[in-house]
Amino acid sequence: MSMNADIWKDLIIKNNSKIVFLIMDGLGGLPMPGGDKTELETARTPNLDKFAAEGISGLLDPVYPGFTPGSGPAHLALFGYEPVDFNIGRGVLSALGVDFELTGRDVAARLNFCTIDQDGKVTDRRAGRISTDKNKELCEKIRRNVKLSGEVEYFLETESEHRAVLVLRGDGLGGKINDTDPQETGKKPFDPEGEDDASRNAAKYVADFLKQVKELLKNDHPANFILARGFAKHEQFPSMEKRYGLRSVAIAQYPMYRGLARLVGMTVPPVPADFDEMWNQLKNNYDKYDFFFVHFKKTDSYGEDGNFDAKVKMIETVDGWSAKLRELNPDVLVVTGDHSTPALLKTHSWHPVPALLWSKKMYARTDSVTEFGESACRRGNLGRMPMKNILLIAMANAERFKKFGA
Amino acid sequence: MSMNADIWKDLIIKNNSKIVFLIMDGLGGLPMPGGDKTELETARTPNLDKFAAEGISGLLDPVYPGFTPGSGPAHLALFGYEPVDFNIGRGVLSALGVDFELTGRDVAARLNFCTIDQDGKVTDRRAGRISTDKNKELCEKIRRNVKLSGEVEYFLETESEHRAVLVLRGDGLGGKINDTDPQETGKKPFDPEGEDDASRNAAKYVADFLKQVKELLKNDHPANFILARGFAKHEQFPSMEKRYGLRSVAIAQYPMYRGLARLVGMTVPPVPADFDEMWNQLKNNYDKYDFFFVHFKKTDSYGEDGNFDAKVKMIETVDGWSAKLRELNPDVLVVTGDHSTPALLKTHSWHPVPALLWSKKMYARTDSVTEFGESACRRGNLGRMPMKNILLIAMANAERFKKFGA
Repeated sequence: MSMNADIWKDLIIKNNSKIVFLIMDGLGGLPMPGGDKTELETARTPNLDKFAAEGISGLLDPVYPGFTPGSGPAHLALFGYEPVDFNIGRGVLSALGVDFELTGRDVAARLNFCTIDQDGKVTDRRAGRISTDKNKELCEKIRRNVKLSGEVEYFLETESEHRAVLVLRGDGLGGKINDTDPQETGKKPFDPEGEDDASRNAAKYVADFLKQVKELLKNDHPANFILARGFAKHEQFPSMEKRYGLRSVAIAQYPMYRGLARLVGMTVPPVPADFDEMWNQLKNNYDKYDFFFVHFKKTDSYGEDGNFDAKVKMIETVDGWSAKLRELNPDVLVVTGDHSTPALLKTHSWHPVPALLWSKKMYARTDSVTEFGESACRRGNLGRMPMKNILLIAMANAERFKKFGA
Repeated sequence: MSMNADIWKDLIIKNNSKIVFLIMDGLGGLPMPGGDKTELETARTPNLDKFAAEGISGLLDPVYPGFTPGSGPAHLALFGYEPVDFNIGRGVLSALGVDFELTGRDVAARLNFCTIDQDGKVTDRRAGRISTDKNKELCEKIRRNVKLSGEVEYFLETESEHRAVLVLRGDGLGGKINDTDPQETGKKPFDPEGEDDASRNAAKYVADFLKQVKELLKNDHPANFILARGFAKHEQFPSMEKRYGLRSVAIAQYPMYRGLARLVGMTVPPVPADFDEMWNQLKNNYDKYDFFFVHFKKTDSYGEDGNFDAKVKMIETVDGWSAKLRELNPDVLVVTGDHSTPALLKTHSWHPVPALLWSKKMYARTDSVTEFGESACRRGNLGRMPMKNILLIAMANAERFKKFGA
């Protein structure tokens, strides 16, 4: 069975309950060589342990066992969206990642500055990984000099190093355009071609854009051209309010996660400067919303850096922060990550993510787990299950579902 | 993947093995405030504990994690039917609930006696919850006075209080008819309208029936009209014998469960007067069938009453009863519930249901669980899984499946 919103839409109850999702990005980990504890198991987390002891724990698979998810699908799973059905185009995800507010008339693509030789063949797909500053300078130069004809606007935004984002905005633009990136050196970039009328229309503008950029940068080095991939038309997903009856707000510092929250219709207050401001945003919005997505990024960043100790410390910081949640006393609290980022691997991984669900009314049928960690979670009553289930279980504990069938 | 009978139909082996499902309705529970044990964990269950110690245990999700199932979908899951695909119309379930034997020519609906004012607007959707006796009296009055023209018969059966069941029987009747219940007071009931030709045909008879009832009851009070909802055409599901090669018998005291068993083609002997007669029915039918559905209701009823202690006692009674199963020595015994009904919540709930599977030949790969209870089950080898799997696992342990693929 593929579970979808059609099945539960008539079961939704609206009430005054509050559901808080406290998300540590890349939370799941692995022991380092010679060790036997993950980052989370190493961290001193008295507050999260108490929530775990009072609630139920488990291990969540963001997409499917064995699959390493990107941030997009992992967060969609947290929000209860089947991450395989709700596919976010790479270009769109990149635009979200630079905090670009997409509209329904936009087609986005991920760009790389690259180096081509006199025959037009790619010699370096990343232009020697130019600096972010250089990238900004080039983008500014392009914006000043490259103009599209007709009714189509473009936006060009620096991501970092050689990476940038292109957004075309206009009526009747399609996103089914091939990558121009040949994926290897010694080959010429492909011409952009559309699969259908709307995409052919958009591809025409992309071709014009690329032609002008090539001319403009011909004397630059090493970045003298760009490669595009992941073209995608932006489409708003059905909102959290529509799918679940949950008025939702996102408290997050990083653009990607703010963008993902917007994609599912959450309200996104201004960027909080620090963790205190995150707390204030949560508190100040508490009466106005039903669902609170609170996102801490640095657990993932330290994992990506391979910095086990810094990830441990960051988890301890969030543990301290989480103690204040007792003041708000939400109906349901879920603490988990979007995916695993073990410092050992320095990248996202396929490992299921530790999770705890705490319910104010103790409806969660507590288990014997008394600490928040991967091995302990495995023994908990949540079991091992798809991440997309956790929102439904949280809603059940918040008494937001009627009975299915008589 | 959606698992269905097409996948296993060529794998079925018929043999002389016996599979017993001992079902305690609403078995799963929660600790009461201040306690730390559920009803099942509180009950003294030496016999079930022994089966658990010798077999494997787990937690089953009737429909989907977070979903609270009605009795219909929950039992279909126990019988291995995907409960979202095999949807039972509410009218049909109500008819099953009053032990009405439906045929393939029947359309059923759930009725409420209600109160309307002089303008025909509903002032009480439940007519002050009239007594069951009053309901019976009104049904008798209607049966005597209301006649349908043409080739269509109707049956009217009291359920309880203000609730009754209407069945139309005839050729070419469809069940796609809107609810006439406006769901709020101050509004007139809706007219019945059919979605397709067959349903329009049936709606015509419903309209005639309602018109006559309105005239007949105009001087009654408070019940002076009826509201109808959940119209559904009765359709027989593929039988247990067809799907699994299992000749199946249901030993159950309550109409709803007898009806559900009939819906999947089980033989249903006369209502057993008590638990001893349930035992005799099991024993006397033992040679004639392969699959035995034995249903105890009161665990659920006491849960619905919020009577923790009575539910505990009822579980202990069933535990005593289960000791006799050693005499029959079935090939496979499954003990579980159809859903959870914690006394704390006084209603069905979303919590997964404790289950044990015991195999005579000890093929079940026993685990470390030595007691039958929610938290212990979680640590068992069945893990946490959809309830619809349990029948297939039981069949495997009864050596009733060939290898899938070479």
